[in-house]
Amino acid sequence: MSSISIIGSGNMAGAIGALALRGGHTVEVVGRDSDKATALARALGPGATVGTWGHAPVGDIVILAVLFAGAVPIVSEYGEELADKIVVDITNPFNADASALAIPHDTSVAQQISDVAPASTQVVKAFNTLFRHILAAGDPVDVFIAGDDAKAKAKVSAFITSLGLRPRDTGDLSMAHWLEGAGLLEMGLARNGLGFDISLGVQVGGAE
Amino acid sequence: MSSISIIGSGNMAGAIGALALRGGHTVEVVGRDSDKATALARALGPGATVGTWGHAPVGDIVILAVLFAGAVPIVSEYGEELADKIVVDITNPFNADASALAIPHDTSVAQQISDVAPASTQVVKAFNTLFRHILAAGDPVDVFIAGDDAKAKAKVSAFITSLGLRPRDTGDLSMAHWLEGAGLLEMGLARNGLGFDISLGVQVGGAE
Repeated sequence: MSSISIIGSGNMAGAIGALALRGGHTVEVVGRDSDKATALARALGPGATVGTWGHAPVGDIVILAVLFAGAVPIVSEYGEELADKIVVDITNPFNADASALAIPHDTSVAQQISDVAPASTQVVKAFNTLFRHILAAGDPVDVFIAGDDAKAKAKVSAFITSLGLRPRDTGDLSMAHWLEGAGLLEMGLARNGLGFDISLGVQVGGAE
Repeated sequence: MSSISIIGSGNMAGAIGALALRGGHTVEVVGRDSDKATALARALGPGATVGTWGHAPVGDIVILAVLFAGAVPIVSEYGEELADKIVVDITNPFNADASALAIPHDTSVAQQISDVAPASTQVVKAFNTLFRHILAAGDPVDVFIAGDDAKAKAKVSAFITSLGLRPRDTGDLSMAHWLEGAGLLEMGLARNGLGFDISLGVQVGGAE
């Protein structure tokens, strides 16, 4: 049981925060709009606190639960306040109709974050292939991760496991690009017959 | 029950050919090396025949089961012989260590094939996220597909279903790029803890 911080007050912040509390962690919610952050912390209930925007988060793991366009600017704004932290990027850089990615092909939001973060900050991509309502349901779904630092991935994997979910390591941070593409695949699957009550996962041994 | 053609005599050709025969189809095997094609057809057994390289395949569905570098040249070489056919591209354009794609970022092998194929040829991406041994096992795994023509996708989906597998439509042919990236993700998962007895699939409703 540890303390995690969530930057963002939206529905993904709420879903991950609720799972984290259920998993026995304490949760610090931080939002640029402190009223929204306070409202989310209250909704989450005991164990949730409100942090101060722009100050060093309490948790070793910092979930960046904001829209993709805000992710890099926020990490830049935080600067050294994120030193030694593990930043978990959950964003999907979709274009307007979620048919393509809206960032250059040779990078990912996670890599862009890593580029602007302090050298001691480790960035891990995770959770981007899970629709909010799937995550909120708390079923034991697969959570794909990618990152360059083995220790950071081990910590994030332990956190994911503590939520009752399955961490699935895809490799180094360059794989974040393909995980962001997997978000597009998932949108395609949802729109072409399966509906949105799905997520991508791993079939082990051809099991059904 | 229909007749399908497979261009290629390698292990993916063998795995798909065996499933197709088991599904009640007849299978035409075509290889540039006719000895290899003949050997594969014999190994597959009753219902398998050998076609003539470069001539119009018998099947409406033509599985292009060759290494990615050969796919576009072969379709170019066949030219009008592939008119009105559905060409199923199963390739993964991996670089030497399967850590990145070896073709430009704004396309896919499937789209490159479509670019050089006759106008009446429909290209469908499928099967590229299945390791040969997973496919050979015949368990009811997910087969992701992508293509621009709804009728062609319906025919390929029916074929996949007849093999005891589950077609999963991801959208138009532009999604083939992300399916090729999903091949990289799968390699990453295999190398980072899960091993190669896996495939990517869809978790419906958060089910385990």
